[in-house]
Amino acid sequence: MPNEFDFIHWLKQQSPHDERLVVPIGDDLAAMKWAGEDLLLVGVDQVLDGVHFDSAIHSPRQIGRKAMNRNLSDCAAMACLPAAAVCTVALPKGSGEEYAKELYLGLRDAADVFNCPIIGGDTGSWPGKLVVTVTILGRSAGITPIRRNGAKPGDKLYVSGPLGGSILGRHMTFEPRVKLARYLAQNFRITAMLDLSDGLGTDLRNLCHASGVGASLAVGSVPIHADVKRLGGTREPYIEAFVGGEDYELLIASPDSLPEPCVEIGWLQSQPGLELRTNDADVQMDWPAITGWEHKL
Amino acid sequence: MPNEFDFIHWLKQQSPHDERLVVPIGDDLAAMKWAGEDLLLVGVDQVLDGVHFDSAIHSPRQIGRKAMNRNLSDCAAMACLPAAAVCTVALPKGSGEEYAKELYLGLRDAADVFNCPIIGGDTGSWPGKLVVTVTILGRSAGITPIRRNGAKPGDKLYVSGPLGGSILGRHMTFEPRVKLARYLAQNFRITAMLDLSDGLGTDLRNLCHASGVGASLAVGSVPIHADVKRLGGTREPYIEAFVGGEDYELLIASPDSLPEPCVEIGWLQSQPGLELRTNDADVQMDWPAITGWEHKL
Repeated sequence: MPNEFDFIHWLKQQSPHDERLVVPIGDDLAAMKWAGEDLLLVGVDQVLDGVHFDSAIHSPRQIGRKAMNRNLSDCAAMACLPAAAVCTVALPKGSGEEYAKELYLGLRDAADVFNCPIIGGDTGSWPGKLVVTVTILGRSAGITPIRRNGAKPGDKLYVSGPLGGSILGRHMTFEPRVKLARYLAQNFRITAMLDLSDGLGTDLRNLCHASGVGASLAVGSVPIHADVKRLGGTREPYIEAFVGGEDYELLIASPDSLPEPCVEIGWLQSQPGLELRTNDADVQMDWPAITGWEHKL
Repeated sequence: MPNEFDFIHWLKQQSPHDERLVVPIGDDLAAMKWAGEDLLLVGVDQVLDGVHFDSAIHSPRQIGRKAMNRNLSDCAAMACLPAAAVCTVALPKGSGEEYAKELYLGLRDAADVFNCPIIGGDTGSWPGKLVVTVTILGRSAGITPIRRNGAKPGDKLYVSGPLGGSILGRHMTFEPRVKLARYLAQNFRITAMLDLSDGLGTDLRNLCHASGVGASLAVGSVPIHADVKRLGGTREPYIEAFVGGEDYELLIASPDSLPEPCVEIGWLQSQPGLELRTNDADVQMDWPAITGWEHKL
């Protein structure tokens, strides 16, 4: 009859030895050494059944991977290296030990790509639906974190890959752009960056508001993912890219010419708001008309 | 019509300036300076509606406080100083902005006692019940973290206060024993320590298993909280102390004589298992007969 202590015992066995870990998983808190020259970056993100995944469709392994990858994508957005993670799982009663183990292995699948140990957690069962929460610790590792607020008028705007239609599956299977972000930050002047989770419309607005600038986009230059065609909706493809969300590509501002896979989609300007340039006309818009995900409380 | 961005704006305004914070709340990740001589301690804990609180009875402010205090109590258990926290809230749809703000203010009430900034978070609404998750970062600040695995045969066992009956309300209102833990660790030889969240039975077993020792308790010396009498159950009071849980007092092993409020309740010995000494007889037990909360998955 497995209980939480059997599960914790199993977790301890799964956790590889890490010499930075002075106190490993299984105590009240884990303790690790930290190199003082490294800034400590911290963020947290939850995935909720029925909102970010559907437990009737997605396997626990897929759900675990997504929960971890969303946080690793935040590391990409800041150009830091993932250093460690802690996770909680609120498990529907009766899910069973195998389900919990598969969730953990999904979290580990994603974290292992970046040699990021899972050093703590809390698993509980309840009468509610599945919630997985991941807190990520990152280290600056020689790169000043890239914020959202440094973009300047005249900077070019880039995205790191095609957008839209992630709901068809990519929102579960994306790969965090950590390596690309570090490469760009080391070799070019990156003035602002974030990862596209809420949709280009909302995330670009956030970058512009944080930096005190406006944006001008050439609609035809926004790279559209093949999934948008597969979606088969009636909206124009660029609208799908604006409102779809969960692309987990990078949105980047830089005065430099950035290499592939980055695609230039426009520039930043001192005039606030969003200017959309099409073949026919330039349309000046207010942000609220075209933003993506906005979660009401 | 408030949405998550209005709420994040409000959160930013609430967050006091902290010079350690190089990147404050509101970016993809927060970034802070870390003194390399300080070990970084990390843990995470979630509270679930219907398990750890009842949203029909407890106010969001109370729930926020408890969520944070459980994590601060883990800092006490390791004798570290709280350094920063990040929090997630899964909010039932329609809870409203005021409810979210009260939750946050409850989290802050508890964290402010220890000058512990909340440096990040994620708030989402969903069709499920309320979940609040807190990740705590602690710093060793001159004290080697106290683990569970250092207790030796011959060490005395102490608890930091009366146990049992916390379900009557103390499980929501306890005060984390951070100050006491730091005082004890600085002035006495503390070989093992944890905070009593699962009940003396389970937590003592965990300490004994981690340290490879057994325990001998004088049943009459276990301090019983007045709440146990108010509970009015038919079980013997010491049994309530064993199985009740959520006392959030410290369980401490030390070869030294510890001062008040610590109460000596027995000792550790090389013989495994638990020996209960009453006025009438000594009873040698296996652990499973008398443990407290064990959450099935």
